[in-house]
Amino acid sequence: MPPTPATPPSEAAPLRPPLTIKMQARDNVAIVANDGGLPAGTVLADGLALRDRVPQGHKVALADIAAGSPVLRYGIPIGHAVSDIPAGSWVHERLLKMPDARGLEGLPVATVRPAAPAPLDGHTFEGYRNADGSVGTRNILAITQTVQCVAGVTDFAVQRIRAELLPKYPHVDDVVALEHSYGCGVAIDAPDAVVPIRTLRNISLNPNFGGEVMVVSLGCEKLQPERLLPPGSFSIVDERSVADVGADAEAALDVVCLQDDAHVGFMSMVESILRQAETHLARLNARRRETVPASELVVGVQCGGSDAFSGVTANPAVGFCTDLLVRAGASVMFSETTEVRDGIDQLTARASTPEVAEAMIREMAWYDAYLQRGRVDRSANTTPGNKKGGLSNIVEKAMGSIVKSGSAPITGVLAPGEKLQSRGLTYAATPASDFICGTLQTAAGMNLHVFTTGRGTPYGLAAVPVIKVATRSDLARRWHDLMDVNAGTIADGTATIEQVGWELFHLMLDVASGRRKTWAEHWKLHNALVLFNPAPVT
Amino acid sequence: MPPTPATPPSEAAPLRPPLTIKMQARDNVAIVANDGGLPAGTVLADGLALRDRVPQGHKVALADIAAGSPVLRYGIPIGHAVSDIPAGSWVHERLLKMPDARGLEGLPVATVRPAAPAPLDGHTFEGYRNADGSVGTRNILAITQTVQCVAGVTDFAVQRIRAELLPKYPHVDDVVALEHSYGCGVAIDAPDAVVPIRTLRNISLNPNFGGEVMVVSLGCEKLQPERLLPPGSFSIVDERSVADVGADAEAALDVVCLQDDAHVGFMSMVESILRQAETHLARLNARRRETVPASELVVGVQCGGSDAFSGVTANPAVGFCTDLLVRAGASVMFSETTEVRDGIDQLTARASTPEVAEAMIREMAWYDAYLQRGRVDRSANTTPGNKKGGLSNIVEKAMGSIVKSGSAPITGVLAPGEKLQSRGLTYAATPASDFICGTLQTAAGMNLHVFTTGRGTPYGLAAVPVIKVATRSDLARRWHDLMDVNAGTIADGTATIEQVGWELFHLMLDVASGRRKTWAEHWKLHNALVLFNPAPVT
Repeated sequence: MPPTPATPPSEAAPLRPPLTIKMQARDNVAIVANDGGLPAGTVLADGLALRDRVPQGHKVALADIAAGSPVLRYGIPIGHAVSDIPAGSWVHERLLKMPDARGLEGLPVATVRPAAPAPLDGHTFEGYRNADGSVGTRNILAITQTVQCVAGVTDFAVQRIRAELLPKYPHVDDVVALEHSYGCGVAIDAPDAVVPIRTLRNISLNPNFGGEVMVVSLGCEKLQPERLLPPGSFSIVDERSVADVGADAEAALDVVCLQDDAHVGFMSMVESILRQAETHLARLNARRRETVPASELVVGVQCGGSDAFSGVTANPAVGFCTDLLVRAGASVMFSETTEVRDGIDQLTARASTPEVAEAMIREMAWYDAYLQRGRVDRSANTTPGNKKGGLSNIVEKAMGSIVKSGSAPITGVLAPGEKLQSRGLTYAATPASDFICGTLQTAAGMNLHVFTTGRGTPYGLAAVPVIKVATRSDLARRWHDLMDVNAGTIADGTATIEQVGWELFHLMLDVASGRRKTWAEHWKLHNALVLFNPAPVT
Repeated sequence: MPPTPATPPSEAAPLRPPLTIKMQARDNVAIVANDGGLPAGTVLADGLALRDRVPQGHKVALADIAAGSPVLRYGIPIGHAVSDIPAGSWVHERLLKMPDARGLEGLPVATVRPAAPAPLDGHTFEGYRNADGSVGTRNILAITQTVQCVAGVTDFAVQRIRAELLPKYPHVDDVVALEHSYGCGVAIDAPDAVVPIRTLRNISLNPNFGGEVMVVSLGCEKLQPERLLPPGSFSIVDERSVADVGADAEAALDVVCLQDDAHVGFMSMVESILRQAETHLARLNARRRETVPASELVVGVQCGGSDAFSGVTANPAVGFCTDLLVRAGASVMFSETTEVRDGIDQLTARASTPEVAEAMIREMAWYDAYLQRGRVDRSANTTPGNKKGGLSNIVEKAMGSIVKSGSAPITGVLAPGEKLQSRGLTYAATPASDFICGTLQTAAGMNLHVFTTGRGTPYGLAAVPVIKVATRSDLARRWHDLMDVNAGTIADGTATIEQVGWELFHLMLDVASGRRKTWAEHWKLHNALVLFNPAPVT
């Protein structure tokens, strides 16, 4: 079934009375919800008159805030007033002094002990069960590459595979070249090189690729195939080939090496890739979807192009859905280190064990040091668009971002590029860059991606379906064929967080089953795999 | 004219007597030139019998070398023997202890004062003269992108431009989306962020794009269009539009912003890109090649997948050609910091002024510190393929790499991502990564690229033609439709360095004129733009 518009483009916004949204009782600011903002002089429901024009998503002071006093949103100080701010004023970023990051010592550890939520049973989707027990939501032939050198040849071959082979294998959804910039010209023995190497390894093992691992290698590169995928890191799918090669089965990685003496001329390289691809396509084509429990979902949640509504509409709806998924026994990853750093105390408190809390602190400390090496800190995160959308600084942005994680206990932590090993809610430590986060969540084994956006982005991945959630109805209307869900209805007052959360949950099962495509899939919008390589290039 | 095979595939290697190549009189090792290497017991021309089998490209000891004594190649110690090495032994990497990098103090500065070489006049090519005086070798519409977010939409638009618009503009060679991973999710105010930002800016101004600058922006990204291309960094090509906008002409950057309110639906974004593209295509299509002097060539030289022959055949031929180009008044850039670091004394000696020498030392010192931050050093450079090809370590590799720079005085130095401002021989400081080096040389304004390879790589760029030179005839035979020049004839004894250098010079004029295509162009083999971003991501 094709995607349906999140909001029909013709459905204009109704004229509405002035509307502000306050997150917690003790907050002394609220954000303006109305499209286009509100002019100076507007009288709010409680009788407060605006002293300034306040743009949509931006904050208005609900009370007089004296210079040096905290500006409270989400119940916490997102900054301190640099001068007296009278009630009714526009509280923009230049009026706020951002607090320092909370230290990583003396944090509350595993102090929040929510009652075990009721299991959520009976929800299923139609997925591709893999030999290792994982489940794919798509049936894709991936061509792993050891190095950027082979990208041109592989791309040439992929175009031919798409034109000549895919039509013969109608049960295969696509062929994807896992192009990347790594593999040579990099300090591959540097301590931090472990990150990009394991990322590439684990991407090639993503459940949407059906356990078929096919590698194109140049030959002389630093990232040799056996270093990328050492024996034991993958399993052979074809039982006949296991029987053929006997005890060495695990070493039988399928590699097309361009520098092999057997290759005479460019076309012989291309033909080798096509020949090997066809072996894998034949096996992938024999697979069929089967009914599996919702617990087989491995969902990565992310936000990008955020605005002040992200933390009010889309992210809370995703958080509600995260709780549903955890209750259903599924796996959910939240990420974006700089966008949760300022909520570290909330996260360590929600850790299921002290070990989980320590692992989170370890990842945050590593990232603090990494940023410091480059002479910046977490405040490097916010964008011009964030600020235009009302987010004054990274503290305010983080408070809105972190709610995607819902309320379940955090039971796991992944370092960048690691593969997910457990169900439940995991903090997958990644940079906040949309592409690096998506790449690392793909490596972790994500089979479905949820992406919220306030400013709007046409983000998509080739390997995993991406459900995009708009934070505002205005965006959902204009980008009616790019946004899959409109959470702006929450700010409009026409839907609740719970309703949108359930809508998203059901859409996830539909998309995972292949019954529905996302808009990014419909238009084939694919962003690049972007590796996190904290080590030097050479 | 289509490319012609560097060496016809059917032309088998003639049976040859044992052949070794010694670079300088004082060397105590030579490399084996024969395809397949030489077996133990082989008696060389001077009567020395091999004690071991020595693979092709690998070193044989010409005399007894006592433990601790220097192993000399290119007249310098590439290492010290870790144990006694009898004459006739295979001198492999495990027998060598690599020397420490030479310090950056007390270097000879501008001590080499070669007689001014005779000008080389009368050579021309057919190029596209740009408004700023630069000359393009191709006539390409480039679509600059501020951020990876827009890559999927731009790619969709480019496919339509290629199918629907390009056929109407037959004098335009191609349309290229300048996709990259930068623009957001990065510490854009970090001190080192200057490198990727100016790289992207200068790539969009490459002479092969005819001065037509067209930008696709998301809207909320950190790298805003006016930050990427501030007023004054580019000039308007269309004089009518200058007249229209009057004094603000320079601010009139052509930007398609996906988040613009005017865009309703995905197709409206695509249509905006097509509409703007057509304006530029019409202007590009009106251009014609004209005869220009060879001094308008801006050549970047690079090597990748090097072997022991690189420094014996292809790189010396490129070096000879570099001297021809400099004599003709052209611009030549050599790069790859870790691959010239061990020859820093040669480079500072060849600097035309103390300022040039100091700039080289500054760039090397910066890179030393950059590698040290990642807890590696220059030795992280060599690859498994280098070693298999006979290069024991980075010292030996560097001695072979540096000869691409020929013998002319070094008159300029560029920091990574800077645009070339002067003719003659310039050290463009870049990492040695093939893709990062090519990307930075493209930013510097390269209009022709020369790439030597011993192990073999199908390297290509979308923006600039790449002439690939094989170091060995065996590679040139097998990769007959990927290699443009066979410098292996030098080792075979069927051509001299000078002959191959002149062959390359004439081929460059033909390729620059569009009379000949390179093999990478013929197959449309394009590697990614890979930015050098020493700053953190967020």
